[in-house]
Amino acid sequence: MSAVQLPHPELAAAYAAARESPGATGACHLDSAAAGRMSRAVRAAIRDHLDLEARVGGYVAHEQVSERIDGGRRAIAELCGGQPDGVAFTESATAALRAMLLAMRLPAGSKVAVLPCEFGPNLRELRAFGLEPITVHPFTETGQLDLVSAAEQLDQYPPALLHLCYLGSHRGIVQPVRELARMGRERGIPVLVDAAQGFGHLDCCVDADAIYGTSRKWLCGPRGVGFAMLRDGFLGDGLPGGGAVLVESQEAYIAGRVGLAVALEEHMPLGPQKVRERLHAIGQLARGFLAGRGGWRVVEPEAEPSALTTLRPPSGFRDEDVAALRKHLLGMSPAIVTTYAGPERGPLEATAGVLRVSPHLDVTADALEQLAGILDTWRP
Amino acid sequence: MSAVQLPHPELAAAYAAARESPGATGACHLDSAAAGRMSRAVRAAIRDHLDLEARVGGYVAHEQVSERIDGGRRAIAELCGGQPDGVAFTESATAALRAMLLAMRLPAGSKVAVLPCEFGPNLRELRAFGLEPITVHPFTETGQLDLVSAAEQLDQYPPALLHLCYLGSHRGIVQPVRELARMGRERGIPVLVDAAQGFGHLDCCVDADAIYGTSRKWLCGPRGVGFAMLRDGFLGDGLPGGGAVLVESQEAYIAGRVGLAVALEEHMPLGPQKVRERLHAIGQLARGFLAGRGGWRVVEPEAEPSALTTLRPPSGFRDEDVAALRKHLLGMSPAIVTTYAGPERGPLEATAGVLRVSPHLDVTADALEQLAGILDTWRP
Repeated sequence: MSAVQLPHPELAAAYAAARESPGATGACHLDSAAAGRMSRAVRAAIRDHLDLEARVGGYVAHEQVSERIDGGRRAIAELCGGQPDGVAFTESATAALRAMLLAMRLPAGSKVAVLPCEFGPNLRELRAFGLEPITVHPFTETGQLDLVSAAEQLDQYPPALLHLCYLGSHRGIVQPVRELARMGRERGIPVLVDAAQGFGHLDCCVDADAIYGTSRKWLCGPRGVGFAMLRDGFLGDGLPGGGAVLVESQEAYIAGRVGLAVALEEHMPLGPQKVRERLHAIGQLARGFLAGRGGWRVVEPEAEPSALTTLRPPSGFRDEDVAALRKHLLGMSPAIVTTYAGPERGPLEATAGVLRVSPHLDVTADALEQLAGILDTWRP
Repeated sequence: MSAVQLPHPELAAAYAAARESPGATGACHLDSAAAGRMSRAVRAAIRDHLDLEARVGGYVAHEQVSERIDGGRRAIAELCGGQPDGVAFTESATAALRAMLLAMRLPAGSKVAVLPCEFGPNLRELRAFGLEPITVHPFTETGQLDLVSAAEQLDQYPPALLHLCYLGSHRGIVQPVRELARMGRERGIPVLVDAAQGFGHLDCCVDADAIYGTSRKWLCGPRGVGFAMLRDGFLGDGLPGGGAVLVESQEAYIAGRVGLAVALEEHMPLGPQKVRERLHAIGQLARGFLAGRGGWRVVEPEAEPSALTTLRPPSGFRDEDVAALRKHLLGMSPAIVTTYAGPERGPLEATAGVLRVSPHLDVTADALEQLAGILDTWRP
């Protein structure tokens, strides 16, 4: 049980009003770190755009929504501390990383410094370009950021690129990307920040060469849309917007970009800072409810400022048991939607799978207690 | 005027029945080479999947449609003469090319032989990987394929890759990719075929290492979905399906993949060979109607087996005049939807912009005559 008071209850009401209720959907969705629940307005905007495409043709339809999509650029720029012309739309965070690496043309064999929480598919992407990930160890043995030793490492072994994963996929511990990005930029090392798990959830005003993310998680936009926010002067030898035109895909799921713009139109009036405060409190609440239940252990410190909770199973459980619990939860009525996060998501530090719980603004104590009760009794 | 008889009139009826009528949409759509008109069923499938995602979560929804998407793989394999496990879904034809080039890891500076009709953005993509496009000139002065001199060129200057654009974006002349692909494969040169304009329109059973394309044009699937069909053994050192897993994007617009699967469910029962025959006759019909009207000249031979017609303006017209005509046509009531195709689309051979007309199965002689009448009288 937990005595955490969630701030900004009006956000829960607004969030819930924009969506079907769990009672109507038959599912209790605790999986925003995978893909958030699109609102009715987001889906309606996508549907309307597809209908428009079928009526007047895909490219004519695109011309008619470019202003609305540009509104999305302005919102992303505001959330990431940049300029709208530096926002490039892509199909996913990974596609944004790929496009930037392609434009950067780092020589094969170049070292890329990453954090231990780095996302597995990002490591594959770096290696596909012939780059060699090395790990920054800016942490003391007690898990605190050690700025001095991180700086020493960057000085002694300067990488060609600093690629910082803001929040991993396999545990909800927020990384000190703000400090590390500054450190990289001071040394003339290009800095990319993967904010796929951070956008709409953590403060993304980070002074990096680019910060990139996705529509579908905490922002609750559609799948199939990502973005990068480029600092002026980053790519393209003086092209405007840091060379965003080199990163944006020209042929695209335009209806999805409209959907993301609408998700941002819903997010901004809520107050992004308030959303972050409530989400962080929700993480604390969830950890309080779930810690120790049935022998499951919460990975994050209880007050970690993220809404991600990951749970290690009782000793003796294997990864497939964790996956089986996720499946069991899905089979309930109503279904409880979570993620089994295998160690391949964070291969530099994860050694075993976890159950990931990532509720959004409207989560209730009842829902968390229901999950906790299942942890108490479920056995493989 | 033209006396061409269009074969398979039942296809026009089926195609029209699956869509709103031009009367209902307020537009006469002659622009399938840009993006075809999605049917009601395609849009409904996308909408339903988005609703499902919002109810049960994006990844749970994905699991529920993977069989339907695999049906799309089977249809693509049948249309491209390959195996379903070699089909990789991407976000666009360009994304497929990018993924394959990334996986191929050709050394920078490698020569890539292309045809003079090569699509401008493909050339940019090749150059972004540090590759150097060179032109294959397999044509005699009268425009016929000269297999002997093409073979000599490949023998004398063997490229690291043969990249063949089946049908350009700026003119509707079908390229002899079948013969050239065989020539490349016989010489151990990897062969990629860009069938973005060919899929659902031309016979795509070409013996290449990979053939790739897009959902949105002649197949009338959604924007934001592309594919590659890989030959067994192409990439990934013995991975199944030619390494398709290296090319398929793992995070994606899944609703769009469902939409493409539905577009294929509609296409296959029509009879792909019949669709091709009717589309080719439509090209001939359109050229017959439009040639010479108001001094506009048709670029293609009248009987060219494609449904693309491109029109050069009367002498004295500039590119911006052609673009202005496209805009004028859009402003009519009902709108006539065409494309202004600038020379940047085919920079190796195009020197001026054209008006591109690309009707689909249900086009009528009345619609073509209406456009011809406007060509007669319109002046910049």
